Amino acid sequence: MDLAALRNAHPEHWTKAAAIRALTLDAVGAANSGHSGMPMGMADVATVLFTNHLNFDPAAPNWPDRDRFILSAGHGSMLLYSLLHLTGYEDFDLDQIKNFRQWGYRTAGHPEYGHGKGIEVTTGPLGQGIANSVGFAIAEEIQRATWGEKIVNHYTYVMAGDGCLMEGISQEAIGLAGMQKLSHLIVFFDNNDITIDGHVGMADITDQPARFAASGWHVQSIDGHNPDEIDAAIKAAKDDPRPSMIACKTHIALGHAAQGTAKGHGALTDAAQMQVAKDAYGWAGASFDVSAEIKAQWEATAERGKAAHAAWHERFGKLSAAKQAEFHRTFDLEAPKKLAATIRAFKKQASESAPKVATRKSSENVLEVINPIMPETVGGSADLTGSNNTKTPDMGVFSPDNRKGRYVHYGIREHGMAAAMNGMVLHGGARPYGGTFMCFTDYARGAMRLSALMGVPTVYVMTHDSIGLGEDGPTHQPVEHLSMLRATPNTHVFRPADTVETAEAWELALTSTGTPSVLALSRQNLPTVRTTHTNKNLTAQGGYVLAEAEGKRQVILIATGSEVELALAARETLQAEGIGTRVVSMPCMELFMAQDEAVRRKVLPAGPVRVAVEAGARQSWDMILMGERGNAKKAAFVGMTGFGASAPAEVLFEKFGITAAHVAQAAKDLL
Amino acid sequence: MDLAALRNAHPEHWTKAAAIRALTLDAVGAANSGHSGMPMGMADVATVLFTNHLNFDPAAPNWPDRDRFILSAGHGSMLLYSLLHLTGYEDFDLDQIKNFRQWGYRTAGHPEYGHGKGIEVTTGPLGQGIANSVGFAIAEEIQRATWGEKIVNHYTYVMAGDGCLMEGISQEAIGLAGMQKLSHLIVFFDNNDITIDGHVGMADITDQPARFAASGWHVQSIDGHNPDEIDAAIKAAKDDPRPSMIACKTHIALGHAAQGTAKGHGALTDAAQMQVAKDAYGWAGASFDVSAEIKAQWEATAERGKAAHAAWHERFGKLSAAKQAEFHRTFDLEAPKKLAATIRAFKKQASESAPKVATRKSSENVLEVINPIMPETVGGSADLTGSNNTKTPDMGVFSPDNRKGRYVHYGIREHGMAAAMNGMVLHGGARPYGGTFMCFTDYARGAMRLSALMGVPTVYVMTHDSIGLGEDGPTHQPVEHLSMLRATPNTHVFRPADTVETAEAWELALTSTGTPSVLALSRQNLPTVRTTHTNKNLTAQGGYVLAEAEGKRQVILIATGSEVELALAARETLQAEGIGTRVVSMPCMELFMAQDEAVRRKVLPAGPVRVAVEAGARQSWDMILMGERGNAKKAAFVGMTGFGASAPAEVLFEKFGITAAHVAQAAKDLL
Repeated sequence: MDLAALRNAHPEHWTKAAAIRALTLDAVGAANSGHSGMPMGMADVATVLFTNHLNFDPAAPNWPDRDRFILSAGHGSMLLYSLLHLTGYEDFDLDQIKNFRQWGYRTAGHPEYGHGKGIEVTTGPLGQGIANSVGFAIAEEIQRATWGEKIVNHYTYVMAGDGCLMEGISQEAIGLAGMQKLSHLIVFFDNNDITIDGHVGMADITDQPARFAASGWHVQSIDGHNPDEIDAAIKAAKDDPRPSMIACKTHIALGHAAQGTAKGHGALTDAAQMQVAKDAYGWAGASFDVSAEIKAQWEATAERGKAAHAAWHERFGKLSAAKQAEFHRTFDLEAPKKLAATIRAFKKQASESAPKVATRKSSENVLEVINPIMPETVGGSADLTGSNNTKTPDMGVFSPDNRKGRYVHYGIREHGMAAAMNGMVLHGGARPYGGTFMCFTDYARGAMRLSALMGVPTVYVMTHDSIGLGEDGPTHQPVEHLSMLRATPNTHVFRPADTVETAEAWELALTSTGTPSVLALSRQNLPTVRTTHTNKNLTAQGGYVLAEAEGKRQVILIATGSEVELALAARETLQAEGIGTRVVSMPCMELFMAQDEAVRRKVLPAGPVRVAVEAGARQSWDMILMGERGNAKKAAFVGMTGFGASAPAEVLFEKFGITAAHVAQAAKDLL
Repeated sequence: MDLAALRNAHPEHWTKAAAIRALTLDAVGAANSGHSGMPMGMADVATVLFTNHLNFDPAAPNWPDRDRFILSAGHGSMLLYSLLHLTGYEDFDLDQIKNFRQWGYRTAGHPEYGHGKGIEVTTGPLGQGIANSVGFAIAEEIQRATWGEKIVNHYTYVMAGDGCLMEGISQEAIGLAGMQKLSHLIVFFDNNDITIDGHVGMADITDQPARFAASGWHVQSIDGHNPDEIDAAIKAAKDDPRPSMIACKTHIALGHAAQGTAKGHGALTDAAQMQVAKDAYGWAGASFDVSAEIKAQWEATAERGKAAHAAWHERFGKLSAAKQAEFHRTFDLEAPKKLAATIRAFKKQASESAPKVATRKSSENVLEVINPIMPETVGGSADLTGSNNTKTPDMGVFSPDNRKGRYVHYGIREHGMAAAMNGMVLHGGARPYGGTFMCFTDYARGAMRLSALMGVPTVYVMTHDSIGLGEDGPTHQPVEHLSMLRATPNTHVFRPADTVETAEAWELALTSTGTPSVLALSRQNLPTVRTTHTNKNLTAQGGYVLAEAEGKRQVILIATGSEVELALAARETLQAEGIGTRVVSMPCMELFMAQDEAVRRKVLPAGPVRVAVEAGARQSWDMILMGERGNAKKAAFVGMTGFGASAPAEVLFEKFGITAAHVAQAAKDLL
């Protein structure tokens, strides 16, 4: 590349882009780790985007109608940090840049949501950002339709690399966005031909524009170092009614000795080579030194956004106070005031009518009362709507023809669905929930972990939660999944026993502001076990006494979901033999373990034999059984020890020994 | 559809296909569950494939050079079971068909590998089959190049639906297969426009042939009910040097009232409607009744394959006895005789030289001695070759220009890699291993669970196994993953402490015939802790005494991987204070728990305080700490309680309190 020619053609642009490149070299050099090449390659695209198009306001990083900038290729974090620093975001002062990747600083190796304002989403696991962005764009479409263009009207811009596009999740995102004609979604593909192992052709020959076009996208291919081409492409992308992909041919690590090579992907820390690159840019500053002039040029890029913000503020101010409050309520993840009373009334009715239904059906019934009072919910399913029971009649289906629809047919795309839901929460104004079979949390794990890591309250409706699904067999029967999810930090796993607990779980999931929820729901019908109404949300305690022992308390049976029924039946047997037996329902182990010691002690006192029953793996029960004042010699577990099988559900429970008789016997064996 | 016209145009074809449709209706009807529509839609394609092309021998279902038939759309299992029954596979007699989806029968809801001969792979989780098939085709290419076309020369045929193609994993498979020009891979796309939620256009508008073509595939679009078009397309696919995709326009549930609707996807059990469909086919047989004439026509389709098998047998017989034995050895998953001695010699050398290296580097060193004596290994990485240390110099890179290469650059495709590896094992003759960062087991979970469920010994090389990876931060730092994997049935999770344990883990992984292995390896350097050589593979015991207490044994410290070093240092501290401390290394918890009680008791006797240390979540340690003669009041865990952070590794261990001092203190607090 003739850098001098580029510099001479667009001197101010060049210098601004060089500031990104220089800061990247300096920060990665100081950390002695990180990824230099991507920011150096995509600096031109970023500079044009921020200078001419992106509406942002560093003084109001969370202004709801800002454009979103999502760095899907999260390893290029210094691109984002440089931009946030240069344009004047308070959370990213020079000290942050100088302490890239160090303990206690906001400038983590990959962008971490919540570390500093200006980071829209945690990225790094490849492909997540582009899939999140589909959720951002869906949320924007729904809200634009709902509030009008004067209140919501912005773009979601994404930078993705070969890594993002090779990950399968990208196809799920591309397919969904193309079908939904998400015209406010614009993806820059960093088409640098390089992956960690070498030239991309070693592993992929995909014609990416053709691939996007096959799913209904508008596509362009440009020189990613030519500011005029970049600007024209962004304009064309905005003008097109389809989502847009701009393949930007770039040189990774532009101007460095490692330019255009796999070595350029990683940390370029050789001081002499760094200096050669800076010289090639015509960059005169010392380490971390950006001149006041260049900094001022960068800060000026925010003027357009500040003006847009001010104009938006004025328009927003013309809304009625009630509408303004409602808008803020949804962006602040505040539940409507009516929710608590609605849930209470629903619970009371359920306790009285005591239906025998699958908890997936209970969930639908709860949603039927919630969705009408929570316009921010966005439901959906990965092509299992009728099985997950996630759709209620009032929602309408989100489509190019119905932007107010709040139900998304995600297609057979569990991972893409999960990531899109994370994107909706992060966009703001939306409370997404989405369903699939619980076994296919396996497909969505990558995004589910990020819900937990980011602390966003995405809700996963996971039905068919055990061998209780029957004939579909072991590929569809979760065994280890409850333990897996419980092992994940900051995740609430709810496995309600009946309609009442399902309503309580939904209330907790929809009032959560920092923790995702998984609702594990049965395919098969379950009796109502909470036949006495309480206003109090007992599920909030995680575990509670459902049935007290009569006489001397010798046994405590602990169960969740479909096995609570078995525990109650086993209690009948034991009580009939004069063995005082308590039944504890444990719909959310994490919430139980978060209670004060005194609360936990009351539910699980020392002394009695403990038998837990759950149609899953034992692992997550060991603490409940043997810790918490338990005793290994007086503890047993009735559940699964291997994979399931294909047969009617009642046959499977019998064959795998998950029966009331077995539970009662396990208790007696320990007495 | 004018079924009469179809029937009259190709009467024998039609009747054979009708047999599949009738058996499907009968079996699903009897089970009162299952999926009728796909087999009814794809019966014509299957009939032409089996009649005119597929080389198979029901009398020798595992004949190595057979063509492979993979039903990626596994819910259409009755298509496969019908074909196996009609063509005469012993394991699929009429009793099996009549007991579809029942306990104890081979005809599970979805095809389960190992249930009966003729099922090549477990399918059902969508997209897996097409991704497995890439592994089948890679294995075939390598072996064709190695053994010559006279010994290995066959096709892999796949049936995939919209569900398979919407799942992201399919893109990973398509991209890899296209780049690798896997010409013996032929995919039939059941292009029926229907998903469970409704018309496919509700969720996807992708032009699938264009999408495949973008990744270098040969594509055709045909009428999937026209036998002539189907036959011609298969011929053209075989003739093309690229992998081939044939989009077959079909009608789901052909001939039934539910034809062409989402209802047709599931169980069609209405007796009257079933009869109407059978009448439309001109099918006169009673339930489950296939006439002797039609059965004979179906059995005749195997003649071509039987002849091919006989001819192959003759050619194979001309190989030297040694070559024949070697061929069978690899297909039988037998390790070479030299392996044990090679590992012993390697261990001895390692114990003596006591290197301080990362276990990912140890792993590379082990592979350097294994790969030359195990020609069946096929290595690879999801674009992290230099970080996973999975490539050894002798392997050569598998590519269109080097079919003998045994190292696969999978690209940034963890899920596709895992599924392809499963396919290679199932094809036979290959022992694949593949690497990524351990955190991205999240991306590969869907296929990893199937390794375990199928019982295939795929080897996962998961490096960067804790916060010890440092600055890349929490998105890349596994926390819950060790517990997650340990909760999965039939999975061996190895976390070796040094070079010697790494060699032992590899020996166990490469001699396993029914269990997948995960090797959790460090990024950071670790000292050799096994400095005294033993011929015995101590890792095979799962956990063993690494350092015995001096004086009265008051404390047992238990650790894995990088934390064994900390446990040994803590022991020094405790012993210096006169506290007798044993250190147990526990490189594989599953193997330890599989030991006899007496062995476990010897390693973990009752009495002493127990402290476990592992830079991960506690969950999987509860049994070791509190069960196994343990005591909750005398047990502590030093590890992670939440997500990691971005900083140098040594800072993270300090900040998260995973230190020798903390371990020693935890023990003292309990004494």
